[in-house]
Amino acid sequence: MARELSRLLGAERVLRPEGDSPYDRDASGRRGLEGRAEAVALPDTPEQVAALVGWCYEHDVPLVARGGGTGLVGGAVPSEGSVVCSLERLRSVRELEPGLWRMSVEAGVTTRHVQRLARENGLFFGPDPGAAEQSQLGGNVATNAGGPHALKYGVTGAWVTGLEAVLAPGELIGVGGWIRKDVAGYDLKDLLIGSEGTLGIVTAVRLRLLPAPPSTVTMVVFLGGRDEGCAAALELLAGGLRPSALDFLDGETLALVAGAYPPSRVTGRDGPGGEARGMPDGAGFGLIVEVDGSEAETAAQRAETLELLGGHAVAVLEPLEESALWRWRDGVNPAVTGTRGAKVSADVVVPVERLRDALVRFEEIAERHGLRSCAWGHAGEGNVHATVLVDPASERELDAAEEVMEELYGVVAGMDGSIAGEHGVGLLKRGQLARQWEPRAVELHEQIKRLFDPKNLLNPGKKLAR
Amino acid sequence: MARELSRLLGAERVLRPEGDSPYDRDASGRRGLEGRAEAVALPDTPEQVAALVGWCYEHDVPLVARGGGTGLVGGAVPSEGSVVCSLERLRSVRELEPGLWRMSVEAGVTTRHVQRLARENGLFFGPDPGAAEQSQLGGNVATNAGGPHALKYGVTGAWVTGLEAVLAPGELIGVGGWIRKDVAGYDLKDLLIGSEGTLGIVTAVRLRLLPAPPSTVTMVVFLGGRDEGCAAALELLAGGLRPSALDFLDGETLALVAGAYPPSRVTGRDGPGGEARGMPDGAGFGLIVEVDGSEAETAAQRAETLELLGGHAVAVLEPLEESALWRWRDGVNPAVTGTRGAKVSADVVVPVERLRDALVRFEEIAERHGLRSCAWGHAGEGNVHATVLVDPASERELDAAEEVMEELYGVVAGMDGSIAGEHGVGLLKRGQLARQWEPRAVELHEQIKRLFDPKNLLNPGKKLAR
Repeated sequence: MARELSRLLGAERVLRPEGDSPYDRDASGRRGLEGRAEAVALPDTPEQVAALVGWCYEHDVPLVARGGGTGLVGGAVPSEGSVVCSLERLRSVRELEPGLWRMSVEAGVTTRHVQRLARENGLFFGPDPGAAEQSQLGGNVATNAGGPHALKYGVTGAWVTGLEAVLAPGELIGVGGWIRKDVAGYDLKDLLIGSEGTLGIVTAVRLRLLPAPPSTVTMVVFLGGRDEGCAAALELLAGGLRPSALDFLDGETLALVAGAYPPSRVTGRDGPGGEARGMPDGAGFGLIVEVDGSEAETAAQRAETLELLGGHAVAVLEPLEESALWRWRDGVNPAVTGTRGAKVSADVVVPVERLRDALVRFEEIAERHGLRSCAWGHAGEGNVHATVLVDPASERELDAAEEVMEELYGVVAGMDGSIAGEHGVGLLKRGQLARQWEPRAVELHEQIKRLFDPKNLLNPGKKLAR
Repeated sequence: MARELSRLLGAERVLRPEGDSPYDRDASGRRGLEGRAEAVALPDTPEQVAALVGWCYEHDVPLVARGGGTGLVGGAVPSEGSVVCSLERLRSVRELEPGLWRMSVEAGVTTRHVQRLARENGLFFGPDPGAAEQSQLGGNVATNAGGPHALKYGVTGAWVTGLEAVLAPGELIGVGGWIRKDVAGYDLKDLLIGSEGTLGIVTAVRLRLLPAPPSTVTMVVFLGGRDEGCAAALELLAGGLRPSALDFLDGETLALVAGAYPPSRVTGRDGPGGEARGMPDGAGFGLIVEVDGSEAETAAQRAETLELLGGHAVAVLEPLEESALWRWRDGVNPAVTGTRGAKVSADVVVPVERLRDALVRFEEIAERHGLRSCAWGHAGEGNVHATVLVDPASERELDAAEEVMEELYGVVAGMDGSIAGEHGVGLLKRGQLARQWEPRAVELHEQIKRLFDPKNLLNPGKKLAR
């Protein structure tokens, strides 16, 4: 197969992985989320992607699209006998028009590069899923990735005005464009967004950007515990504040990263005051509240936040450096993983007023299975990264962890939530959709897959409804 | 048929229109956009809608969903032998949770009612297509309606977190819910949004709302002509201003509504100054610039607008009452229609930097066909309501008008624009999509229709790609 692909694409664009290959897994490191690619193709043009899809369709070979490999649900893990199509060499920035608030990039351009280009031009690209240095725009679009700023600015799809994609049996097409409104045809663009490489392969993305907010203020509101924390998040929203981010870390999570808490000052109504030493005593829940706008506006929103939450809070701190706070926040994942050697987690969503209930239920389930748990995520959207800490050598714990997550999916489906908020379905959550959707909708999901991919060769086995 | 429907739904829910019936047309009053309904069903529950779809599917009867009847492309016009399903009696507000920024309404609730309920609760519902007293949420969703505020706040679809809809062959389903993030299945919600009753019938909508901006400032920037006006719109965006609306009226349009221009003051950097008498002399193009935010923010944005555009403008006026200005703007349609007895117009979109070219080309085409033209719309989105003034008694003029629009669709498709921005495709623009989309995408459009409606009974003949 590798030989034939070399003839098709050129030998320098085909790898034949021997032994341990990074293309065989994703960032989850999770049991069961591993595969074996027969070959890895590294096309450097969209036309080569189209040729590859054409070849696979002709020869009945499964094809797995891969971005930065930062996924957590096995979406990019190769299935039996498949070719991996890594988009990492599609790196061109095709257009950047700051005055028109837009940029077009190929699938392999990293999130950080897009963010940086936008910022250098006085603009702003909202979506900020983790692993910005590795994650790529094609993958972000394929998973409709979120991040803290999705609360105010929407998930990746909200920033996409057009896509270029390869569809079966090997055709390169464009959907959308630079226009901001278009009701001429059914919404193929949003059908491809979040389809995880199962309906087509995104090769380039047209992004709308926004003028950068001139100022941001980031506060960490520490509360006594979960009940107070969840109530505080609701109070902030009910108070009419519109934060640009409203993340949470529960008490267990805070305890694991307390040592790394960045230098801060205690926030007063007029701004940061005296220096704080680490996290405050009695902190059992943390809300990261970011507000943005003009200087005057962020000052007003800071004051409003304190007025709404100050009375309930253990303390409100403001980091000396905002970037240090977000680095600390990004450190949660490795810290949690390191505590017992591994973690098993699920990205789920519930209506925001059910956040507390979902967290309580999750903790109960984990306890019942004898596992230590913690949770963090995007409070403003009821988006929870529910996590259990496990010993990677203990099959019993790993089994128990899977049972916990299985139960959790049932709980969120029962709360009119979703089993997948921003990390996709991949291999991990296959079969869960049927819990959440009615049979007719599930059937349409499957029929749409067959329409786009009649031979079931595009990332087969992923995003399955049942 | 009416008798059988009466048995199914109850006689009080079925009309058998005799003679001239409002259900036979839409608000366009356009030649060719008329039909004849065999019966009109007025269900008052979603279950009755499902029963109706089931009956139609069993008896091979076409079914045309109808909202407020304010469409302009014949989307709600009955096809031969069809039943009209008017959703006007589905009027319940199912949920209103101001603290959670959300509202659920049935399809027949008017835009104005949603806007009013939101405002009474300190919230804001962004979409504002015209005819707010008549247009209904179900219809707005079915056409993915826009309006001036779509520039900052997105079209109707951006406000919809969940839908209830009846799909063939008669099943009531829900898609989405209150959650703000969900990647569990393919995006059926966005597929239904804008599908104009051809894939299913929307019976209820879950809407996200936003805290109301505390203050707005509306300015009308008058410029010498089209070139200056289009350049000014681009300059405003390039300057980093993010207006909540950026509408335009060309010189011909201004001339038709000059007499009704509302009382205003001349705007200075610090706010409105001396009184203005009507529109300024030399006004050949108008930009309605609305900015919103806190008082301080709107003041800053007013100053910025004047800094960016003041030098180029003939005058910048601020209405004494903002609502009077928008009423004046809503008066464009009747004034234009009244000038020669009728108008023929098309809602098209081009990338914003092509706005000037599109307007020039449109005027040339109209002139070549011997017709007087004018244009207005949403400058910030390149969304043009291109209009020719005609004598409704002149078949020659009406023919010429159709030719003008046909040419215009070709022009916008050639500019990577869209033949339909916010008014839908309906009957009027059937067959135009194939000019704009590649064959494979057109094929998918048609396959999706067959998937949802295998018997082609849901609003048949509408939104056709070729």
